[in-house]
Amino acid sequence: MTDSSKPLDYVEAHLDDSLDRLFALMRVPSVSTDPAYAEQCQHAAQLLSDELNALGFDARVAPTPGHPMVVAHHDGDGPHILFYGHYDVQPVDPLELWKRDPFDPVIETRGDGAKQIVGRGASDDKGQLRTFVEACRAWKETEGRLPCKVTILFEGEEESGSKSLEPFLHANAEELKADFALICDTLMWDTETPGLTIGLRGMAAGQVTIRAASRDLHSGLYGGAARNPIQLLCSILGEMKDADGRVTLDGFYDGVPELDPAVRASWDALGFDPAEFLGEIGLSVPAGEKGHDVLEQIWSRPTAEVNGIWGGYTGEGFKTVIPAEAHAKVSFRLAGTQNPEKVWASFEDHVRSRLPADCSVEFTGRGPGSPAVTVSSDSPPLEATRAALDAEWGKAALIGCGGGIPVVTSISKILGMDTVLVGFALTDDNIHSPNEKYDLKSFHKGIRSWVRILEKIGEMAKVPA
Amino acid sequence: MTDSSKPLDYVEAHLDDSLDRLFALMRVPSVSTDPAYAEQCQHAAQLLSDELNALGFDARVAPTPGHPMVVAHHDGDGPHILFYGHYDVQPVDPLELWKRDPFDPVIETRGDGAKQIVGRGASDDKGQLRTFVEACRAWKETEGRLPCKVTILFEGEEESGSKSLEPFLHANAEELKADFALICDTLMWDTETPGLTIGLRGMAAGQVTIRAASRDLHSGLYGGAARNPIQLLCSILGEMKDADGRVTLDGFYDGVPELDPAVRASWDALGFDPAEFLGEIGLSVPAGEKGHDVLEQIWSRPTAEVNGIWGGYTGEGFKTVIPAEAHAKVSFRLAGTQNPEKVWASFEDHVRSRLPADCSVEFTGRGPGSPAVTVSSDSPPLEATRAALDAEWGKAALIGCGGGIPVVTSISKILGMDTVLVGFALTDDNIHSPNEKYDLKSFHKGIRSWVRILEKIGEMAKVPA
Repeated sequence: MTDSSKPLDYVEAHLDDSLDRLFALMRVPSVSTDPAYAEQCQHAAQLLSDELNALGFDARVAPTPGHPMVVAHHDGDGPHILFYGHYDVQPVDPLELWKRDPFDPVIETRGDGAKQIVGRGASDDKGQLRTFVEACRAWKETEGRLPCKVTILFEGEEESGSKSLEPFLHANAEELKADFALICDTLMWDTETPGLTIGLRGMAAGQVTIRAASRDLHSGLYGGAARNPIQLLCSILGEMKDADGRVTLDGFYDGVPELDPAVRASWDALGFDPAEFLGEIGLSVPAGEKGHDVLEQIWSRPTAEVNGIWGGYTGEGFKTVIPAEAHAKVSFRLAGTQNPEKVWASFEDHVRSRLPADCSVEFTGRGPGSPAVTVSSDSPPLEATRAALDAEWGKAALIGCGGGIPVVTSISKILGMDTVLVGFALTDDNIHSPNEKYDLKSFHKGIRSWVRILEKIGEMAKVPA
Repeated sequence: MTDSSKPLDYVEAHLDDSLDRLFALMRVPSVSTDPAYAEQCQHAAQLLSDELNALGFDARVAPTPGHPMVVAHHDGDGPHILFYGHYDVQPVDPLELWKRDPFDPVIETRGDGAKQIVGRGASDDKGQLRTFVEACRAWKETEGRLPCKVTILFEGEEESGSKSLEPFLHANAEELKADFALICDTLMWDTETPGLTIGLRGMAAGQVTIRAASRDLHSGLYGGAARNPIQLLCSILGEMKDADGRVTLDGFYDGVPELDPAVRASWDALGFDPAEFLGEIGLSVPAGEKGHDVLEQIWSRPTAEVNGIWGGYTGEGFKTVIPAEAHAKVSFRLAGTQNPEKVWASFEDHVRSRLPADCSVEFTGRGPGSPAVTVSSDSPPLEATRAALDAEWGKAALIGCGGGIPVVTSISKILGMDTVLVGFALTDDNIHSPNEKYDLKSFHKGIRSWVRILEKIGEMAKVPA
């Protein structure tokens, strides 16, 4: 048995030092999307690598065709974990909306007394990744060891498309492979409840163009006899969902599981108010599948969306045209083991089977599809993490995420590992916006949470590689 | 019994004089849309008024807030007809595509030997209106009278929106009221067959905007639970037609008659090739109602068209947005006694009845609706005209017109009169385009046709006013 009491005491005694180190990292303007800051990205990577070496990790700055990675290893008993974070930040434009220099962080006290770390990267992801590093420090400084074997990967291109990530994972798969991954880049459920994100929906997306006549036609001369591709596209996309909100594509729900009762119970305990959720965006009628509540509709159920449509005359006034073609951008959010390629193929079949013989269709603009990511609610890593969060906060929420987080898919696909997503950010953190902040409570209790998570993971039965 | 043999002989003997008078009118650049030509429009009106007075009409140039009208009366026995034409022409841009000065008309002989009058207004509508005036001249010069009572109205703003027309009809309704109207501004069926246009489809049109959430949403966070207004619009517009091409709006077909057997027989005799008609625009599958052939679909059946649609992200790449609103421009071509207001109201009901409680709809951009215009195939004026055309050409086609001709609707609405549309233009006349022409045969046999039509109208039993 390990005992986290000394490390936790250390966190309490040295919180100001932890903050100083966070501020030092935040002062480096590591804006990855702007080539002018390339040296600063290198500097941020070096700072972290040096610090991890000083802490007893075997760390290095690993070059890529873009900004470098930081890779660090520390031995330990028990399971082997891979912790992922990113040291790069979003640009600060529009600068005039910041109340102070984005790269000169401070602690501010809000009207309600809550203390907040303000500056670019406070939350996303410098503040969050530092909760993990400071937890490792607390263990090392008090117990001289880590409760489990730890590999760290810090990326420098998360905010600019992660171009180097997958090639790097492929090239260094042996070195980076662990029992499972942990990421600290997600949200809490609310200010009192840390979030464990157990599902990320996948994605399949592309563009469809339907062509009818060889040129635009006057509806007076041809209206009725000539196929209207807008009408046809509307009919085809309209039939993609039935009156109960279910997607009608052939085989669409293959691999979509019913909700795990344990997850269902956890969601029921969240006190989620669907009326309030929809009310905030001016809506009141859940649009998804009948028989599934709003949380399921956004977290665990797949859906089909038309994200854009255009065709014919769209200017002022009226033009009685029957256009030659019509276009739409269509995407699918995926759940369970739905296969993005199969879903898109089924969409293509849906369109083609409804096409008259004299019309044609073209599918373009396919993004790389990604399957959904699901963490089983009874997986040992999740159980261990949840127990640790319970110990620190008194509770933890198993939450879903309607969108994908690409690195989770990459880690699953290339390294074959599951990921546990633990986050202490709040929806009002202004990430990607001026006046980004991170609650001091998130930082403080986030460090304490990782101290406990490392302990619980160390106590796990060894997970087979 | 009147006898048209002397007037017809006069036409033959004086065709060159008739051409000279047409050329004199064509040399006046009466481009109505360009204020720089206002004086020339006045000049064209004066020329016609003077000529009609010289012929024995009581003619005048009648001012309007725009270009003037020419109004002329001539007494006669038998029915009273109103003949409408327009002396204004389209602009000539692009001038560099004309083979010669658009306002210096000539006769050109085509490779196949056909002689053609070339210049702006040759066909639309100076050549066509002159066929009627020259026929009146032939009667006056040979018989000293006209076979029926004639009122003439020449407009000067037909090519620029006809802004003064309806006010003028209202203000001068008593003076202009006749038994029926005749217009020479339409097409022949082919070079051997003059056209009697017996139906013009009506129109109802407007724009629909569907609104859902109060702002654009990220489909990862809200996709499934939040209503997608594009999807909703597609579904609503898709359901506007059924699988058999029928419009599903409640009561839509109220007032749409089955095709008159006499008209059906006339159309069957046209030798129309639907495969060729559709093939020219790259299509092969008639899109209209099952059970109605292509000519019916474009001439006598109503239809619904989406003329434009837009919403969401329509640029390069992909954006997983659920937009707050989606828009479409929708129009209906009407037949029989379909009421434009009722059809649009039924469309609004169709949309509203499919709208979830948290979405809203706005209808904007309504144009002035017009009902269809139908001339009964056994109406005495049509019978008389058809008999005259048969006598001249050996045949005449009863044809439909998929679009509307606004003046016909105005005459019907304001003066309560039916209109017979007789035309000698051809589809290759380049109206509104460079190198406009009118076949000399159209001009020559057009004058002869009107000589005979006036005779046949004079023989009609007096039509009740």
